[in-house]
Amino acid sequence: MPRLLNAAIARTHSRLCVGLDPDPARAPRGVAHDPQGIVDYLRRVIDATADLACAYKPNLAFFEALGAREGAETLEATLRHIPTGVLTIADAKRGDIGHSSAMYARALFERSGFGAATVNPLMGADCVAPFLDYADRLSFLLCLTSNPGADDFLLHNGLYLQIARRAAEWNRAHGNVGLVVGATRPDSVAAIRAAAPTLPFLVPGVGTQGGEIDAIVRHGRDDQDEGLVFNVSRGILYAGTSASDYTDAARAAAQRYRDAINDVFDGA
Amino acid sequence: MPRLLNAAIARTHSRLCVGLDPDPARAPRGVAHDPQGIVDYLRRVIDATADLACAYKPNLAFFEALGAREGAETLEATLRHIPTGVLTIADAKRGDIGHSSAMYARALFERSGFGAATVNPLMGADCVAPFLDYADRLSFLLCLTSNPGADDFLLHNGLYLQIARRAAEWNRAHGNVGLVVGATRPDSVAAIRAAAPTLPFLVPGVGTQGGEIDAIVRHGRDDQDEGLVFNVSRGILYAGTSASDYTDAARAAAQRYRDAINDVFDGA
Repeated sequence: MPRLLNAAIARTHSRLCVGLDPDPARAPRGVAHDPQGIVDYLRRVIDATADLACAYKPNLAFFEALGAREGAETLEATLRHIPTGVLTIADAKRGDIGHSSAMYARALFERSGFGAATVNPLMGADCVAPFLDYADRLSFLLCLTSNPGADDFLLHNGLYLQIARRAAEWNRAHGNVGLVVGATRPDSVAAIRAAAPTLPFLVPGVGTQGGEIDAIVRHGRDDQDEGLVFNVSRGILYAGTSASDYTDAARAAAQRYRDAINDVFDGA
Repeated sequence: MPRLLNAAIARTHSRLCVGLDPDPARAPRGVAHDPQGIVDYLRRVIDATADLACAYKPNLAFFEALGAREGAETLEATLRHIPTGVLTIADAKRGDIGHSSAMYARALFERSGFGAATVNPLMGADCVAPFLDYADRLSFLLCLTSNPGADDFLLHNGLYLQIARRAAEWNRAHGNVGLVVGATRPDSVAAIRAAAPTLPFLVPGVGTQGGEIDAIVRHGRDDQDEGLVFNVSRGILYAGTSASDYTDAARAAAQRYRDAINDVFDGA
């Protein structure tokens, strides 16, 4: 439900989501590569950015790559450290036939306690429904992603707009549907906003992938100025290069992104 | 590489894949609902069907719903019990932008040691590529699923055929791409086979979902008669209703499905 998201945006005066994609091979020098080292690293980044972010988005791929058991422990310890009142988004991109999707929704919303999740809608209504049945959680459906491969299927025959239209319909029951809309394709954002006027957009691709904040805001803002959250992962997590500078560097980067986003909103 | 799949089919004289979707709420009476109880249950089903199946397909949703840590332990203990020479398919339906997909592929193929996985191709080439880079593993891309929601996007503007065509191209590098093709839509199977003449199909939806084996074989077989594997999950796992009969019932059901599939191939 956008309520939790809107409350977090209002309280933190930030539309920045910090993505947690812990890759031991890219971690700053001096960060131990074992699960405890990763947990300490992520907790320090969270401490350094907690007043600057409306949401944190652990990318489950990076945790699972540590090993199923180690990844589960690392994720659990990381989640416990995220302050209440900040939205936690499981970047899981799950989706399956109905009764399997119900199990994924249970895993993310009940077992791990996430407030929101990314969902892959490819398999359609009965794949998405079990996530939306959690009326007090927010589900961001993949709509137009920021990667080159979006050309293959999402941009083929306007699939992304068909997803946006169906998502707007599915939103009517509980008002708890959002869309993942990549920052690298601003020209398409206006069409998605027209198809889904009130849905919040989770926007990845700012930072490392080069997306333009002002173009996204221009095309993607809604009437209430509530509908946009920008995710930055690597640009914050790997802003520093050593154990002695990465918390300061993460904080400085988060501040820069938060302010750049707010400047566009305030100046418009 | 279909090689491992073909070898398993030849050795077991079976095209049956047993799906492992452990739902404590549906388990036979007397099965303990804790992780150890689930492991014992799945191991006994595996023992009862090991000579009848060319593959086992754990559905990760059901393991994750046990809790991240408990699910990881349950999956690990289950996988250790699957005989070598039988294909293990991670029914994970993962897919993300390139470097995240690489993490999912590492989790499934390196950490958990699966021989194959189901992959959600929605995000396109760079989402699928990291899975296919594991040349000795088989990746089944979602193409046309067996659920009602397939109408929403996969059957919209022929997306499923576009996926089949791209999959056939991507198969050229290592010959390690397969497709998930639901048994409930036999009319579309001929078109998928025409678009992807040599790719193996993993066919869910036989059994509980009512798919017809003979129609699928008629439309989906390839020149070498190698390209079809049928998955049955609930029809085997929940064939029995109590702790005293579920292994016999699972074996009888598996035998019935294996024979029904072989009869169609042999009689054709």
